[in-house]
Amino acid sequence: MATAFEYTKRIGWADCDPELIAFTGRIPYFALEAIDAWWQEQTGTGWYELNIDRKIGTPFVHMSIDFSSPVTPRHPLVCKVELTKLGTKSIHFRVGGYQDGTLCFLGKFVSVFVVAQALDSREPPADIRAKIAPLVVPE
Amino acid sequence: MATAFEYTKRIGWADCDPELIAFTGRIPYFALEAIDAWWQEQTGTGWYELNIDRKIGTPFVHMSIDFSSPVTPRHPLVCKVELTKLGTKSIHFRVGGYQDGTLCFLGKFVSVFVVAQALDSREPPADIRAKIAPLVVPE
Amino acid sequence: MATAFEYTKRIGWADCDPELIAFTGRIPYFALEAIDAWWQEQTGTGWYELNIDRKIGTPFVHMSIDFSSPVTPRHPLVCKVELTKLGTKSIHFRVGGYQDGTLCFLGKFVSVFVVAQALDSREPPADIRAKIAPLVVPE
Amino acid sequence: MATAFEYTKRIGWADCDPELIAFTGRIPYFALEAIDAWWQEQTGTGWYELNIDRKIGTPFVHMSIDFSSPVTPRHPLVCKVELTKLGTKSIHFRVGGYQDGTLCFLGKFVSVFVVAQALDSREPPADIRAKIAPLVVPE
Repeated sequence: MATAFEYTKRIGWADCDPELIAFTGRIPYFALEAIDAWWQEQTGTGWYELNIDRKIGTPFVHMSIDFSSPVTPRHPLVCKVELTKLGTKSIHFRVGGYQDGTLCFLGKFVSVFVVAQALDSREPPADIRAKIAPLVVPE
Repeated sequence: MATAFEYTKRIGWADCDPELIAFTGRIPYFALEAIDAWWQEQTGTGWYELNIDRKIGTPFVHMSIDFSSPVTPRHPLVCKVELTKLGTKSIHFRVGGYQDGTLCFLGKFVSVFVVAQALDSREPPADIRAKIAPLVVPE
Repeated sequence: MATAFEYTKRIGWADCDPELIAFTGRIPYFALEAIDAWWQEQTGTGWYELNIDRKIGTPFVHMSIDFSSPVTPRHPLVCKVELTKLGTKSIHFRVGGYQDGTLCFLGKFVSVFVVAQALDSREPPADIRAKIAPLVVPE
Repeated sequence: MATAFEYTKRIGWADCDPELIAFTGRIPYFALEAIDAWWQEQTGTGWYELNIDRKIGTPFVHMSIDFSSPVTPRHPLVCKVELTKLGTKSIHFRVGGYQDGTLCFLGKFVSVFVVAQALDSREPPADIRAKIAPLVVPE
């Protein structure tokens, strides 16, 4: 089972600011989109289906990102998503964004499992835990 | 030469609003991203390279969109981009957005060619006209 | 009763693209934000409260925008929102965006009233019709 | 001289996701918009003017945010921006986001001064340092 998931995204004009690079505020969007795609790949349900169909939300309690190289439309952005910790009611991800082999940003993201819309914390259901627990890599 | 270009985009949680569908304001973004990708596919230069490397801008003077069916994360969005008119200094596109075979929106978009940043109107260079002129389809 | 509502918005770096002007895709966002604020001002409920608290949605079936002058961070954007038609189950708006007295864009937007999430068309409730019907201006 | 700057922003439908709260990816946008407004307030030049007119960029090298309470359209968002460190070529901010008196998120943001577009690091000009140096508060 592959523990690292790579999500490739086209970077375009709409992402760029007058400095001619992707606007800083877009980077968390890219990372979150990659995590959303990770859920879809690893469990068969992205955030939308997880929330609407299974009534499970995973709101974020923390994110931190180091930016090391600009993101531009010159190359696709490859986001490498890894699950670094699966707690009783929380889940930790590491997302690295690469363009043409260069690390552009590296981030940590922590979510908690909640009952959708109620926002009360809960444990993830057993079938989902079973699918993702084997994917944990060292932090 | 294929006159219709299809651009496929993942629709995710980040695109959706509390009505559980892609926010209306996102639809023009999707269509513009598809046109940006059309430029890249048909001329080898997306808007970014066209603007930065060749100093050509294509700002929009008009857009109109009819929305016929909601866009959701349940299916990828396929945007069919067609060039419907190539004037001396203007260019017209039609973009249809489809999910699972259903038309979700249909839009018309008109840009003009300008000198980048100066925003003075200009004709497109001959090499670019040569590449795209054969792609025009009836409006 | 004032029939024209003006919504003023700060334009910033995040709105701009490498052409040094607000990205075209942002303009519909600005206009929609102004319409959302119009609802809040004229009925006491923005789209969020209208949807969540009163189970009424107003999805768009059409938008068309003419762009006449670039939007930049040099001035605030003043969006003038007018109700141009109130049908049995539909509502038409005109939104003009101005910076420093210059018209930057002018758009038409048509929504329909629906039961939230079901997306079935419906008439607006009487209290809301009573508040907005007097605001209609010639198209 | 006031060392804390408060930036108030309307939160609307467009910011919210199917969980009925502002999408996580929007929070960095809100914080960055507040920092952009801080620059405008404290130096007379927002990021746009700083970049275009003075050829100074301030790209981010780090951000970290703790999310403690959801952001919704029920109340305006008040972002309190503080300058926590002014290095030779770097600048650190703390941004707290509040709704109705409740802390929703608290973030740290670190930028470096660069020559616009060249992205080479540089020191800020003396007039700008003179305006902002007195604003530093303990981290």
